[in-house]
Amino acid sequence: MSAAGSNLWPRFSDIQEAAAALASVLSPSGLFRSVRLDKIVGGRLLVKSETLQPTGSFKIRGAWNKIRKLGSEDLSTGIFALSSGNHGLAVSWAARAAGARRTVILVPQDAPRAKIDGARRLGAEIVAYDRRTVDRTALVAEWRDGNGLVYMPAFDDPDVIAGAATVALHGAQSAADMDFPIDDFVVACSGGGLAAGSVLALREMSPGTKVWAVEPEDFDDTAQSMESGRRVAIRTSGSTICDALLSPEPGELTFAINRLGLAGVVRGSDHHARVGMAAAFSEFGLIVEPSGALALGAALDGALDLRGRTAMVVLSGRNVDREVFTSELVKLDRENR
Amino acid sequence: MSAAGSNLWPRFSDIQEAAAALASVLSPSGLFRSVRLDKIVGGRLLVKSETLQPTGSFKIRGAWNKIRKLGSEDLSTGIFALSSGNHGLAVSWAARAAGARRTVILVPQDAPRAKIDGARRLGAEIVAYDRRTVDRTALVAEWRDGNGLVYMPAFDDPDVIAGAATVALHGAQSAADMDFPIDDFVVACSGGGLAAGSVLALREMSPGTKVWAVEPEDFDDTAQSMESGRRVAIRTSGSTICDALLSPEPGELTFAINRLGLAGVVRGSDHHARVGMAAAFSEFGLIVEPSGALALGAALDGALDLRGRTAMVVLSGRNVDREVFTSELVKLDRENR
Repeated sequence: MSAAGSNLWPRFSDIQEAAAALASVLSPSGLFRSVRLDKIVGGRLLVKSETLQPTGSFKIRGAWNKIRKLGSEDLSTGIFALSSGNHGLAVSWAARAAGARRTVILVPQDAPRAKIDGARRLGAEIVAYDRRTVDRTALVAEWRDGNGLVYMPAFDDPDVIAGAATVALHGAQSAADMDFPIDDFVVACSGGGLAAGSVLALREMSPGTKVWAVEPEDFDDTAQSMESGRRVAIRTSGSTICDALLSPEPGELTFAINRLGLAGVVRGSDHHARVGMAAAFSEFGLIVEPSGALALGAALDGALDLRGRTAMVVLSGRNVDREVFTSELVKLDRENR
Repeated sequence: MSAAGSNLWPRFSDIQEAAAALASVLSPSGLFRSVRLDKIVGGRLLVKSETLQPTGSFKIRGAWNKIRKLGSEDLSTGIFALSSGNHGLAVSWAARAAGARRTVILVPQDAPRAKIDGARRLGAEIVAYDRRTVDRTALVAEWRDGNGLVYMPAFDDPDVIAGAATVALHGAQSAADMDFPIDDFVVACSGGGLAAGSVLALREMSPGTKVWAVEPEDFDDTAQSMESGRRVAIRTSGSTICDALLSPEPGELTFAINRLGLAGVVRGSDHHARVGMAAAFSEFGLIVEPSGALALGAALDGALDLRGRTAMVVLSGRNVDREVFTSELVKLDRENR
């Protein structure tokens, strides 16, 4: 049985346990709705925003669910993570809340300033590396074995996936409160943790729901992997404004789950991200980062056919530099002219 | 006894009744906090955002509290309001929810597009007037007496003030839950309804709290009125980006309350509004309109001395055109360079 065998998959009870542990951490917030957006898709959109969570993304769920289980010995040594942003912020926040002595975040040199500054303000040490030249596996080994710190994976980990799965668990609970069965559940996809968690939560809570992952068209590793039936590591010369969705390869565990559970993978464009950002601005008053808005924009721009359906779309994060946010909205206005 | 005699003031039981009636209408949301902003003011900031309420401002509270009391005869004729924006949006929403047959919003020709379009989408008829030439009292009389519609005042009304007062009531409840006594409560001020409501709610719930109103420096009618001890109608050739705070004169009832209850009135600048918008962006991921961010910006920029104090600041609305939002943030970056 491979390392990604289903005995490693989080069980539904793990997801429920994560949700209970997260109750004191998460911000209260309901679903966002808009008559105008419903008209655009020709269906019913339920928008679940994770942008108001501590550190501004869903990543707090996985990070907290992992870190809360650490023993005092691990906490007194310290932890580290590799992250271009939201995972690093979430780990820094959770590590401080749990009382870790030391938190190191290894960030690519081109990571967004808003995210790096945020992690530093939360007390993390920031160590930059060059994303084009450094072997990430070797980097992890160096910090784990060399410095004895505990590694916090960003997605390919049962506890992190169980934490991420609580997004769908809470979303399905809210939808049930409103008596809306969810036909489609749409999330952005990088390493696939949020998608995999959604698959696991919804197959219990709402088995009829189709789970869709949206990834940047030039970073379509999960789409390519789904198409070829095995994990594909992409090499791309492309670029995207979705700085949180740059993973070159799906996780082993996440892909094993997503391969069986996803209804499909949609390739989203930078234009989609901008459309999603603008819609969240105008309809909900929410700042959403490009990666966090990609799923909504793809849904609104017809990349998914949601006519006559009830779809829940996740806004996964909000951490974007102010200049990037304003310039992308200006770009959208030019595209629309 | 004048029309603004204290027998007309909403009682605390009216405010509690408004809060009960609003429970099914309001969005769940807690207080927002930021270590960085606390450092800037040298105290403890509790930010109460009204931007996530239906129609994106605190105005839904007063509008709903007024409209819920209308009889079926009034609803079957219809209602109207004068508003440059948020009040009009709130009235349109509440009127539709209550089943009013007709809703007319009279708007100045230079009102923000985001607000006008929103009211129209909520089913209101929009009628534009010229703010520089039209006598607003005559306009109200024309629509009330000529067309028989029920007038929905924006602030100078006991039910509207009792509704607005629930912002402070809910804020004080949240602060009490966290065991933080509030030293200062800071709100933006146009006609003075939010300020007056805050005064009335807090003198019951938290009598030691000082209530501060912040208004644009060139639209300082409440400050001038406080200074001269009577209502002053200002004539100004100035301008401000705070399009929701243009009232030329305090209300009769609101001023009677504010004169006795306010700790002071602060004159805020466009720069303050921009500082507040940028802070809400970076720290909370919230879109806030200039008027809604003025109080926060004034607090952050030292216009109020909050050192060593616990201050609750209200973000009162989010409805801003995208181009205005982005261009004001770009302007701030230039100011800071």
